[in-house]
Amino acid sequence: MRKIAISRKESFNAAHRLHCDSLSLEENINLFGKCNNPNYHGHNYTLIVTLIGVPDLVTGLLLDIRKLSEIIKAEVVERLDHKNLNLDVPEFKNLNPSAENMAFVIYDILRKAIEPQFDLKIRLYETENNFVDYPYL
Amino acid sequence: MRKIAISRKESFNAAHRLHCDSLSLEENINLFGKCNNPNYHGHNYTLIVTLIGVPDLVTGLLLDIRKLSEIIKAEVVERLDHKNLNLDVPEFKNLNPSAENMAFVIYDILRKAIEPQFDLKIRLYETENNFVDYPYL
Amino acid sequence: MRKIAISRKESFNAAHRLHCDSLSLEENINLFGKCNNPNYHGHNYTLIVTLIGVPDLVTGLLLDIRKLSEIIKAEVVERLDHKNLNLDVPEFKNLNPSAENMAFVIYDILRKAIEPQFDLKIRLYETENNFVDYPYL
Amino acid sequence: MRKIAISRKESFNAAHRLHCDSLSLEENINLFGKCNNPNYHGHNYTLIVTLIGVPDLVTGLLLDIRKLSEIIKAEVVERLDHKNLNLDVPEFKNLNPSAENMAFVIYDILRKAIEPQFDLKIRLYETENNFVDYPYL
Amino acid sequence: MRKIAISRKESFNAAHRLHCDSLSLEENINLFGKCNNPNYHGHNYTLIVTLIGVPDLVTGLLLDIRKLSEIIKAEVVERLDHKNLNLDVPEFKNLNPSAENMAFVIYDILRKAIEPQFDLKIRLYETENNFVDYPYL
Amino acid sequence: MRKIAISRKESFNAAHRLHCDSLSLEENINLFGKCNNPNYHGHNYTLIVTLIGVPDLVTGLLLDIRKLSEIIKAEVVERLDHKNLNLDVPEFKNLNPSAENMAFVIYDILRKAIEPQFDLKIRLYETENNFVDYPYL
Repeated sequence: MRKIAISRKESFNAAHRLHCDSLSLEENINLFGKCNNPNYHGHNYTLIVTLIGVPDLVTGLLLDIRKLSEIIKAEVVERLDHKNLNLDVPEFKNLNPSAENMAFVIYDILRKAIEPQFDLKIRLYETENNFVDYPYL
Repeated sequence: MRKIAISRKESFNAAHRLHCDSLSLEENINLFGKCNNPNYHGHNYTLIVTLIGVPDLVTGLLLDIRKLSEIIKAEVVERLDHKNLNLDVPEFKNLNPSAENMAFVIYDILRKAIEPQFDLKIRLYETENNFVDYPYL
Repeated sequence: MRKIAISRKESFNAAHRLHCDSLSLEENINLFGKCNNPNYHGHNYTLIVTLIGVPDLVTGLLLDIRKLSEIIKAEVVERLDHKNLNLDVPEFKNLNPSAENMAFVIYDILRKAIEPQFDLKIRLYETENNFVDYPYL
Repeated sequence: MRKIAISRKESFNAAHRLHCDSLSLEENINLFGKCNNPNYHGHNYTLIVTLIGVPDLVTGLLLDIRKLSEIIKAEVVERLDHKNLNLDVPEFKNLNPSAENMAFVIYDILRKAIEPQFDLKIRLYETENNFVDYPYL
Repeated sequence: MRKIAISRKESFNAAHRLHCDSLSLEENINLFGKCNNPNYHGHNYTLIVTLIGVPDLVTGLLLDIRKLSEIIKAEVVERLDHKNLNLDVPEFKNLNPSAENMAFVIYDILRKAIEPQFDLKIRLYETENNFVDYPYL
Repeated sequence: MRKIAISRKESFNAAHRLHCDSLSLEENINLFGKCNNPNYHGHNYTLIVTLIGVPDLVTGLLLDIRKLSEIIKAEVVERLDHKNLNLDVPEFKNLNPSAENMAFVIYDILRKAIEPQFDLKIRLYETENNFVDYPYL
């Protein structure tokens, strides 16, 4: 009855702009610099989704990794890939699409789609050099 | 007296087939799809072994990383590299060589070979996109 | 009218055994060592396919990279992924599935599937540390 | 008097949309699919710039790699990083920002900035799996 | 009020020699082998710095990742890059510059420079195959 | 009778200092900046060695990749790994150990060790972002 973690990596490409409607133009520029470009910029995002639980004793699988891949593609990649996060994704209509907020949004989407017996963690790379982990452990 | 983790990456190449003798042919195909190919397929496995403990106050080493590399090669790579996991490795004679089960087997082998003052964790990549961690934290 | 090269990376997982029927068992072992394991071993192969030509003046594309990806998947990945190269792939029934021979076979398959106005090159990684290029320039 | 090639890798993040003004909306969608999203998507582009020539006999350098890095940053990264290629970059006002066209534009910019005794080549990665080389050899 | 972790990767190149003044020449050679070469050897070190905390509710940022990058460059890269750790860095005058000790030194430097509301973790790669994590979780 | 290229990747860690005895201290500092640090700095060098020729018709191998690995380790890694290039390697006693000069030296060493029926090329990475190719095609 040993707990293990399995992880799957997927990716998507999106445009975004760091911007808060509640702040002035000047404050937005001061806070976000070139990331506030009103015409947007973009990234190849890489997402690692981790499930934690006890593998099935007969099959030796926690969850078929192809099934996990399908869930990530259906729930996350389908919504975010080749999209403008600010304009095309309802969750970011009033929420700054920072990597931190993206992680919260993606986690909440996946948490509903992943069966509750599995603990869930995600890592989101905005670039090769910048990434976030939620939950943080 | 500060605890630290050191990690070493090694790799091995092996053939395997996902298959459970206790299930019917049809159940095996339904569960494992093309991974159930009776003629086997294979992977370049990448293994990261992590030791946790307090470094020696004189040398500043937790364990000589070359020594850790030698242990992994002697205990794991020697047993699994260029092998058919199902046919050549006794631990998988009656155990499906899923990444999850491989992690348990490799952990148990290394746990006996690593001195008990060190905590031990492993990560096993089956492909660049699929990996498991045991223990899960 | 400037020529350019576009490249697409795909991957597949397969088992194989280096073995020549025309040689004795002893010669096979001497030549191929552990790669001659009669029970097979395996790899995550990574394939990079390069097309060279003049992009369309209107669209600015040499070939839609999604179309190139589909061709590689249909012609190569479908035939080799999760297969035993020696047993499941007719081209290697009497041909040692070395990386060199695999490159020749894959090139010949793709050459028929890629329109003749494009020059074609492939790179095949057997591991992260070993790869072949055909043609060699 | 031996010729050698030196290469430097830099990166930039940009939004773009594949679109040809000379084609109808329907043709654009048929040709470019989700890459035609009117709200743009984006990428982390990776650029490798290669210079070929004979190193200085005294210093043993073809060109100080830090100087090459500065040229790429000043001429390419400054113009494209955190930009919308279609809206913010004059070269793409009437030119579809495909990877092929981007390679031609970047090459032409760098060719003017690099001294003529050096041959020049570039590789541009749009994603880890898609890249172009110009010139093609 | 959800805690998240953000991480930034930076790198530096340095020479070092594993050596303890309190040990004899013979003991140093026995312990450290070729890493004890009196003329030094070197590495491209890669450093990942992780901050943990609650993002700002307005901006959606834990800390501007460009700010984190600047702190790492000012506090760590500036001190260690293109340096001889044993000769040029005061912290290692009487401390063996093992990866473990480097992690402790870098952590202590960053801990003073990072505001106390953030938890801090670092990972230091000495090579692609060897790395340390401090704290160990 | 088709020509193919096979490549093998190996690595070594070394200290060096960019410096020309024929230049003044001031000229050395102006030319090489922090790379001229008299106490040296260092790198994890990655070397890719490529052989070109016609594979053996019976075995389907150009050269056993394990044999190529052994040649690189015996001829290059043994001489350069965990060394100070300026002090420990005779070839650089009067030659600035720039990546360009290192490529020439490594090529000349390997050219004598590789049978003449094979064409030879090398790529040397000084860092992930800087590399040289010799010959240049």
